[in-house]
Amino acid sequence: MLVVMQSHAADSEIARVVEVIKGQGLSPHVMPGATRTAIGITGNTGAVDKSLFEVLPGVDEAIRVTKPYKLASREMHHDDTSIPFTQGTIGPKTFTVVAGPCSVENESMVLKTAEFLVSVGVKFLRAGAFKPRTSPYAFQGMGLEGLKILAKARERTGIAIVTELMDTEHASAVEEASDIIQIGTRNMQNFSLLKRVGKCRKPVLLKRGMSATLEDWLMAAEYVMAGGNYQVILCERGVRTFSDHSRNTLDLGVIPPAKSLSHLPIFVDPSHGTGKRSYVPAMSLASLAAGADGILIEAHPDPDKAMSDGAQSLDFPGVEKLLGRLKELAPAFGRTLS
Amino acid sequence: MLVVMQSHAADSEIARVVEVIKGQGLSPHVMPGATRTAIGITGNTGAVDKSLFEVLPGVDEAIRVTKPYKLASREMHHDDTSIPFTQGTIGPKTFTVVAGPCSVENESMVLKTAEFLVSVGVKFLRAGAFKPRTSPYAFQGMGLEGLKILAKARERTGIAIVTELMDTEHASAVEEASDIIQIGTRNMQNFSLLKRVGKCRKPVLLKRGMSATLEDWLMAAEYVMAGGNYQVILCERGVRTFSDHSRNTLDLGVIPPAKSLSHLPIFVDPSHGTGKRSYVPAMSLASLAAGADGILIEAHPDPDKAMSDGAQSLDFPGVEKLLGRLKELAPAFGRTLS
Amino acid sequence: MLVVMQSHAADSEIARVVEVIKGQGLSPHVMPGATRTAIGITGNTGAVDKSLFEVLPGVDEAIRVTKPYKLASREMHHDDTSIPFTQGTIGPKTFTVVAGPCSVENESMVLKTAEFLVSVGVKFLRAGAFKPRTSPYAFQGMGLEGLKILAKARERTGIAIVTELMDTEHASAVEEASDIIQIGTRNMQNFSLLKRVGKCRKPVLLKRGMSATLEDWLMAAEYVMAGGNYQVILCERGVRTFSDHSRNTLDLGVIPPAKSLSHLPIFVDPSHGTGKRSYVPAMSLASLAAGADGILIEAHPDPDKAMSDGAQSLDFPGVEKLLGRLKELAPAFGRTLS
Amino acid sequence: MLVVMQSHAADSEIARVVEVIKGQGLSPHVMPGATRTAIGITGNTGAVDKSLFEVLPGVDEAIRVTKPYKLASREMHHDDTSIPFTQGTIGPKTFTVVAGPCSVENESMVLKTAEFLVSVGVKFLRAGAFKPRTSPYAFQGMGLEGLKILAKARERTGIAIVTELMDTEHASAVEEASDIIQIGTRNMQNFSLLKRVGKCRKPVLLKRGMSATLEDWLMAAEYVMAGGNYQVILCERGVRTFSDHSRNTLDLGVIPPAKSLSHLPIFVDPSHGTGKRSYVPAMSLASLAAGADGILIEAHPDPDKAMSDGAQSLDFPGVEKLLGRLKELAPAFGRTLS
Repeated sequence: MLVVMQSHAADSEIARVVEVIKGQGLSPHVMPGATRTAIGITGNTGAVDKSLFEVLPGVDEAIRVTKPYKLASREMHHDDTSIPFTQGTIGPKTFTVVAGPCSVENESMVLKTAEFLVSVGVKFLRAGAFKPRTSPYAFQGMGLEGLKILAKARERTGIAIVTELMDTEHASAVEEASDIIQIGTRNMQNFSLLKRVGKCRKPVLLKRGMSATLEDWLMAAEYVMAGGNYQVILCERGVRTFSDHSRNTLDLGVIPPAKSLSHLPIFVDPSHGTGKRSYVPAMSLASLAAGADGILIEAHPDPDKAMSDGAQSLDFPGVEKLLGRLKELAPAFGRTLS
Repeated sequence: MLVVMQSHAADSEIARVVEVIKGQGLSPHVMPGATRTAIGITGNTGAVDKSLFEVLPGVDEAIRVTKPYKLASREMHHDDTSIPFTQGTIGPKTFTVVAGPCSVENESMVLKTAEFLVSVGVKFLRAGAFKPRTSPYAFQGMGLEGLKILAKARERTGIAIVTELMDTEHASAVEEASDIIQIGTRNMQNFSLLKRVGKCRKPVLLKRGMSATLEDWLMAAEYVMAGGNYQVILCERGVRTFSDHSRNTLDLGVIPPAKSLSHLPIFVDPSHGTGKRSYVPAMSLASLAAGADGILIEAHPDPDKAMSDGAQSLDFPGVEKLLGRLKELAPAFGRTLS
Repeated sequence: MLVVMQSHAADSEIARVVEVIKGQGLSPHVMPGATRTAIGITGNTGAVDKSLFEVLPGVDEAIRVTKPYKLASREMHHDDTSIPFTQGTIGPKTFTVVAGPCSVENESMVLKTAEFLVSVGVKFLRAGAFKPRTSPYAFQGMGLEGLKILAKARERTGIAIVTELMDTEHASAVEEASDIIQIGTRNMQNFSLLKRVGKCRKPVLLKRGMSATLEDWLMAAEYVMAGGNYQVILCERGVRTFSDHSRNTLDLGVIPPAKSLSHLPIFVDPSHGTGKRSYVPAMSLASLAAGADGILIEAHPDPDKAMSDGAQSLDFPGVEKLLGRLKELAPAFGRTLS
Repeated sequence: MLVVMQSHAADSEIARVVEVIKGQGLSPHVMPGATRTAIGITGNTGAVDKSLFEVLPGVDEAIRVTKPYKLASREMHHDDTSIPFTQGTIGPKTFTVVAGPCSVENESMVLKTAEFLVSVGVKFLRAGAFKPRTSPYAFQGMGLEGLKILAKARERTGIAIVTELMDTEHASAVEEASDIIQIGTRNMQNFSLLKRVGKCRKPVLLKRGMSATLEDWLMAAEYVMAGGNYQVILCERGVRTFSDHSRNTLDLGVIPPAKSLSHLPIFVDPSHGTGKRSYVPAMSLASLAAGADGILIEAHPDPDKAMSDGAQSLDFPGVEKLLGRLKELAPAFGRTLS
């Protein structure tokens, strides 16, 4: 159920609706929009009586939401979600580039990368301190030590940090060190972890699971949002199919329906989506054209010596060249490169 | 094996190489390039002796081709293939829009559509006279009658015709009526049909099979080319996956590797790839950005009354709007809208 | 629409119903069952008036069929279909083993195989004279010469022949030479070919397409049946998925729903389904246990020297061992090894 | 690297090898087999010198393991793994049935189910106290209260408990309450969780991820084993494909290659694999025939009233009937129903 307030509704009227919802043993989710406020209701197992709310002062109408996801749905929150950062805004008018190495390898390479990125106008650094590796014998990331290096890069250059959280145990440490908490593909349906980041006050970048349908993915976002954290960024990174010409099958076709069903920003990771450096620029441009709000790309000072995913990482000249193309094209899609 | 001639090689030298190849019981395929000619050799079951050719006058080098496809491979034909038509050229410098209804429904709608398309600068009309329908009880197309209508549309408006051939029986009739012969998804590995169109003198638009790997697809092109018809256009139209937000999963990520492995032009069909009209424009722009040489879109004067695939057909204003966007963006990708 | 006759309905009453159906411009399909006859109606585009038939003498009821397939549906033909051959019956009480080499390589190997198979009780020989090969440069089968060899094997040993038809051109020759006409995976939606075998008087073994849903597959069977040939055997042979431990993903789970929705017999091809000889016996037993009516396996006198698919072919001792296991287990599933 | 001891090797010789391995900064994994002991070595980043071990007394040979998984590989542990319980043994000579409701709903239904199962000879009860639900608004399980109910069922009936662990936080509680710790499909690559159960002293039932390759799956098992817990049971439960006739595509074809590559027991979950009660018996028998060591099936006293997954749950007479069939058939596969 969604209670839509009149555009001139007073704060006291909103507070009254919230109170009535709580009085029914349900959870209110106040969502201020550009022109008026809507209040989502979750927690009901059966139908809720609409008239209960429609008689309250300041209420325009109460709408039943029929999708299994509510907070993530455009029905419930009509305007595109924008997420403001000191460094810039992620949302419908910008195209955000997040770049950096697969993993934090050592301090000097992270600082070098952060400085380079800032120098070319990139405002978000991605790098993993905790790495979900298929093999228990592979490099598992620098862990807490890696988070310290990321904090240093932020302090030194002002760049915003995007880094992965793999378990509830390290939630506070990652929340502290990052500006955006990444939930990886393999954890898209780790519901305990989703609930935990629902309690964090940092935005969450939620990668699509390898075989997740759009509904599965929006339900995973719903888990985070139901915990109170409404700042979720979806990130398409390719799905598993029979197709073997690339590491994964990048499903750019998910962008228009995701935008139609949900108000959340959506990014694309063409590095994992293709698995090959030389395919990344074309798929980055295609992401912009398909309606994405940003990309997440792997960049490394010396890709051939990367400890992980070197084959899909751009080198610095490659990043610069791609940025030039994106800057040139973004305005034709009503966006500014961020 | 590929015999690469020197750039100044005389026709008589080329003829000599052809003769030697035939003398070995093998098939020569002369492929003139922008700067020099290469001669492909097929038909060998084991290894062929390189030195046999390298000693001949005018030969630069003989290269072993290690891919299972030869004529379709970029190793064998380095330059992008261009296909000239009276109406315009399909190839690396243009972005070609092929539009029209799923099926030929009657003369008036085809003429109306052709006239509209020509008026907005579209030079290729697609429409099926023979329709591969999942159900034997569904409309199977107008058949030969439909071909006549297409011929009339061409005669009246000068538009080039793209139409599907479903069996060897109608090969001559379709070849006669069309400018490009379409081989549908379900027939991508109908090898008898591929061999037959290898004997046609019209270019072939080869749709990717629903679960075809890139190699399967290039091998299907190879079947056509091995018959002597080198004018093959690949067409991505979505593959079958678990993903259910769209009719098919449009694999735009296949474009960069296809371009890397093959010299053939590649189109995208975002209508079948998404199955929903409102998603077609975004995926058309994304196709251009990903490196495609053209698109194949469904357009209908009154989509809601279409006999097939209405949900994924654009109406005329929708086509015009999309063309405007493509015209605006094509130059940024080094292409002219054709 | 399905018209169900009373159990004591006279032939003249059936004829009368047929006449009325034809009078409506529709096609009647008389399907005699164990206890009573049903008459299917196809060809209608809109709804047909039930009462038109229910008033006729001998008619029990008229039932609307809601599935897109009619003749293939169990709604329309309740009893399991049995297909009688001189050599034995394919159907619900038997478990039929069809064995033989991937392709007809030469006369001596085919005769040797046929003689061996007959000696161990196998009554159906599979071998391709026309081979759908991914590469135009691979062995394409012996063609008409191969059909002659198969005819000789039948004449000499009495074994029934199962062989593939790839195009309408060779339909008569294959129909003449075979006891069961095989339609391959890549041609499951070659609708022109399906229509052609609908006119043949030999049973059709219809392999499932690589990415065909159960409905697609039953619709393909419907194409054959709508042409008048009701003797269709479905054959599961593995589908294309991300899974890479075997050549294809053998979908044994399709058997119970196929049996529930359709009356047609269903076979399994564990050779293509696994791609590896050593996995074939386990998956053959699993096919029996899952409810299949038979298997199609590749067998070769000397698999390591096979011209195609040797890796998945059993040698003769392997076939004998597997037959022993099947003979031992079949009765527990209410079947006799055939 | 794998050090294989001579069959008569003394304990002191084994201890010596362990010491040498540790001296190299590597981790030894002593794996006693039926006839002799092997010692796996993990933790090396580069190659290890074989001769270092081959000169030690009691050592037969040192073998390089080339698979990315080591402890899970049959190369490293030749004999099939057997896992003994008070209630019976899971392994190559038995076929184990694990049954019970999707979730612990209340005490009386769990006790009723446990008593019924014990009465018909089933020795393992499955039921979830923590439930991974796609929707945050769906019943999430009874949690710790549910574990108490399971403990009571075990105490009252002696049945062994299989229940899911969803996060590291509840690892001790679940380990305490269960006889087998289940790791669910969505957590197959939750590496933090895998590492945690590697430290548990209870066997782990590891469900296959929805789009996990066999290698991914064995690598997940390796994570658990690398932590010291060698008692891992694989459980196939269907993968995600385009196929829509069942909830998932049950990949029984994974059993022979899994058995060939690994020594671990493998179960099948035909309830999730099909999603439909009526298909469960056929796929259970097929699992036995394909070589599985057991099945995990959903059973409920009143499936139509189940709080989750009722459509795929057998009722009690259905369970009894299936057990009868399995008991009849198991000996033909060299197994005893357990």
